[in-house]
Amino acid sequence: MLTKRIEKVRKFLDYKKLDAVIVSSVSNIFYLTGISHFSKDEREAYLLITKQNAYFFTTSLYMEEVKRKIKGFTLQQIGRDQSFEDVLEKICQKEKLDAIGFEEHDIRYAEYAWIAEVTENLSPVSLNIRVQKDSDEIEKIQKACDMGDKAFSHALSQIKRGVSEKDIQIQIELFLKQHNADISFRPIVAFGANSSMPHYESSAERKLGNNECVLIDMGAKVAGYCSDMTRTVFFGEPTKEQKDMYQTVLESQQKTIEFLLKDVPSTRYVLAKDVDKITRDYIISKGYPPIPHSLGHGIGIDVHEPPSVSPNSDVVLRTGMVFSIEPGIYIPDFMGVRIEDLVVIEGESLRILTLSSKEIIVL
Amino acid sequence: MLTKRIEKVRKFLDYKKLDAVIVSSVSNIFYLTGISHFSKDEREAYLLITKQNAYFFTTSLYMEEVKRKIKGFTLQQIGRDQSFEDVLEKICQKEKLDAIGFEEHDIRYAEYAWIAEVTENLSPVSLNIRVQKDSDEIEKIQKACDMGDKAFSHALSQIKRGVSEKDIQIQIELFLKQHNADISFRPIVAFGANSSMPHYESSAERKLGNNECVLIDMGAKVAGYCSDMTRTVFFGEPTKEQKDMYQTVLESQQKTIEFLLKDVPSTRYVLAKDVDKITRDYIISKGYPPIPHSLGHGIGIDVHEPPSVSPNSDVVLRTGMVFSIEPGIYIPDFMGVRIEDLVVIEGESLRILTLSSKEIIVL
Repeated sequence: MLTKRIEKVRKFLDYKKLDAVIVSSVSNIFYLTGISHFSKDEREAYLLITKQNAYFFTTSLYMEEVKRKIKGFTLQQIGRDQSFEDVLEKICQKEKLDAIGFEEHDIRYAEYAWIAEVTENLSPVSLNIRVQKDSDEIEKIQKACDMGDKAFSHALSQIKRGVSEKDIQIQIELFLKQHNADISFRPIVAFGANSSMPHYESSAERKLGNNECVLIDMGAKVAGYCSDMTRTVFFGEPTKEQKDMYQTVLESQQKTIEFLLKDVPSTRYVLAKDVDKITRDYIISKGYPPIPHSLGHGIGIDVHEPPSVSPNSDVVLRTGMVFSIEPGIYIPDFMGVRIEDLVVIEGESLRILTLSSKEIIVL
Repeated sequence: MLTKRIEKVRKFLDYKKLDAVIVSSVSNIFYLTGISHFSKDEREAYLLITKQNAYFFTTSLYMEEVKRKIKGFTLQQIGRDQSFEDVLEKICQKEKLDAIGFEEHDIRYAEYAWIAEVTENLSPVSLNIRVQKDSDEIEKIQKACDMGDKAFSHALSQIKRGVSEKDIQIQIELFLKQHNADISFRPIVAFGANSSMPHYESSAERKLGNNECVLIDMGAKVAGYCSDMTRTVFFGEPTKEQKDMYQTVLESQQKTIEFLLKDVPSTRYVLAKDVDKITRDYIISKGYPPIPHSLGHGIGIDVHEPPSVSPNSDVVLRTGMVFSIEPGIYIPDFMGVRIEDLVVIEGESLRILTLSSKEIIVL
C-alpha cells in the first residue's frame, strides 16, 4: 500500500518534470510512511522522494523508532551537527538531482531560504496526492464517522437545563478518549444566538435555558483519520421561524445529495462549484442570507484538505473523494442552523458516511 | 496588558526600522489579542501592526465573535471575495507603508509569494516578543504545572501489572479534561527498553511487566499556557545499574539548578549554552553517552518556544524567562531516564515550577 503511494509521488515527478520532491507536511509523511506522531509545530522529519530512491530525514529523538518501523527508505539523521539542508545538498550532488519540488503550502519562508541556498532549481508545488482515497482510507473514515455518531448521541444525552456549552464540549472529548479515539478538532457547542457564529468558541459561563437551539459541530479521529459532522437541535419546542430555517437548511442539503446521486453515476463531469451552487442558490431563493462559508471541504488525515466544494472550485468530482456537505443559515442575535454530513464518491455511486438522524430533534 | 504587548511590537518596529509587521502565528495572535481558537493548520487570521494602527484580518466565520471581543483593532474581513493580500495592499497604499516585516518561521512559501506581489519591501523577521513572560503569564504557567503535578500523581496511581502504555496515556488525558484543563502535547508513556526512545509513540499492545521502568513525559494546558514535565519511575526494585543511571541524571539536573541559583542573582550574564554545558559535561564525565537533545526549551503559549537551552544557544538568561531543564541518558535496548522540570527566572532568583518529587520512586 505504501509502495503504491510512493509510486503516486513518482508519477507526480514525471508530470511536473522534477528529479525529486521534498515532502515536509506531517500529513503527507504519515500517508507515505505510516508514522503519525511528528509534531505539526516543529520540523522533526522530511522525506525526499527521487525517481529511484526515498530518503527519510529525522532527528536523534526519533531515529531508533523510525529505524524499527520504516522500510524502503534510506534513513538520514539531522540535527544540530548536520542540518537538513547540509544532508540534502550532499544527496543532490551524489544523485545529480537538479529540479527539486517542495510543498509550497507547508514549507515556511525561513526553510525555503535555507533550502534555496543549496539547491538552485527549486519549484513550489502542491503535492495533492491524498485527494482520491483508497479503500483502506475510506474504511478508516467510516470508522471515524461511526464513532462521531456515537459521541453525538452521547452529547445529546447530556443536554439539560443549566449545562454549559463547555460541559457538552468536554463530554464529547471524554467520550472519544474513553473509546480509544480522539477529537479531529475541538468541538463547537453553541447555545441560542451563539449558534450564529460559525466558528464560535464554547463558553463555560453560557448555560442552557429553555427554548434554545443547540448547535454541535464535532468530529472523531480514528487510526489517524478524521470525521466531521454538525447537527442543530432544539431544547424546547422551536418557533415556526426556527423550524422554517431548519427545514430550509435540510432541504438545501437534500437537494444537493439528490443531485449527486443522480449525476455522479452518469459519465459526465460534475464540478465541485456546481454542487456548491445548488445549495447556495436554494437558500437564497428562500429569502435567507447566503452561506458565509464553502459548502464543503475534503477530509481524511487532515480535517480540511482538498477538494474544496466552494464557488471557485473547478475540481472534477471523482471516485474516492470524501467531502462534507454543510449548508448553514446564520442570523446574528437570533440563531444559526448548520447540518453537515460526510459523503464519499465510490465508483458510480455516492455513499453518505454520517448516519445520525436529520429529522428535527426537540429535547 | 494587551496594550503593553502591542507596544512591544512597536518597539520591535523601531529597532528593525520597519513601518509595520504582519503577525500570522496563532500563538502571537493569541498573545496580542487574547483570541486563542484559530486553527494552526489554516489561515484564519492575521494582524498588521503599524506605528499608529493595528488591523485584525479574519474570515466571515469569525467576524461576529472577533468584533465582540477585541478592542483597539480595525477589523477587516478577508475571504473568497477579497484576499488578505488585496486588503493589505490597500492599507499599505493608504497608510504609505513601505518596509513590512513578516514572521519568517510561520509564513508559508505560498503566502510569501502572494504577499510579495503586493509589497516590495518585505523583511523576514523572528517576532520573539514572548521570551520574557509577564506576571500574568507566569501565574498561568504555574497553574498548568500544578495541574500537571496532579495528573502525574493520578498516572502513578494507575501503574499496575498488565496495564498498557496507551492506558496510562489516556488516563492522563482524561484526568486533565475532567479538571477543565487540556494536554499541552500527547503524553509519552514508555515501559522498559522503550524509554530509550526520547519521542516514543506509546503502544496499546505493550503491557507492563515486573521490574520495568516507566517514563512519563507530559504537560497540562491551562488558560492557553503549557506545562511540561518528565519523571522516570520503577515498577519493582531497580538494579544497581538502573539506580546509578537515575542518580546521574538527577545529579546533573541538581548541579544545573544550583548553578542557576548561585549565578542568576549576580550581575554577570549567564548564557543558555553555559547552562546546557554543565549538565551535558556532568553526564559525560560519569561515562554515559551525551544527551541526544537540548537540555531545555522555553515554554509558554507554545510547548516549545524561545529560549532554547542548547549547546549553540547564545541567549542571555533574563527575568521572566520560563524554560525546561531535562537531562536524559538513553541506552538502546536497555533503558532511558529523563527528569524534566520547568523553572522561571524572577528578578534575582530562580523558582522551580514543577513540584513532583524526584526521589527515586519504586512502585
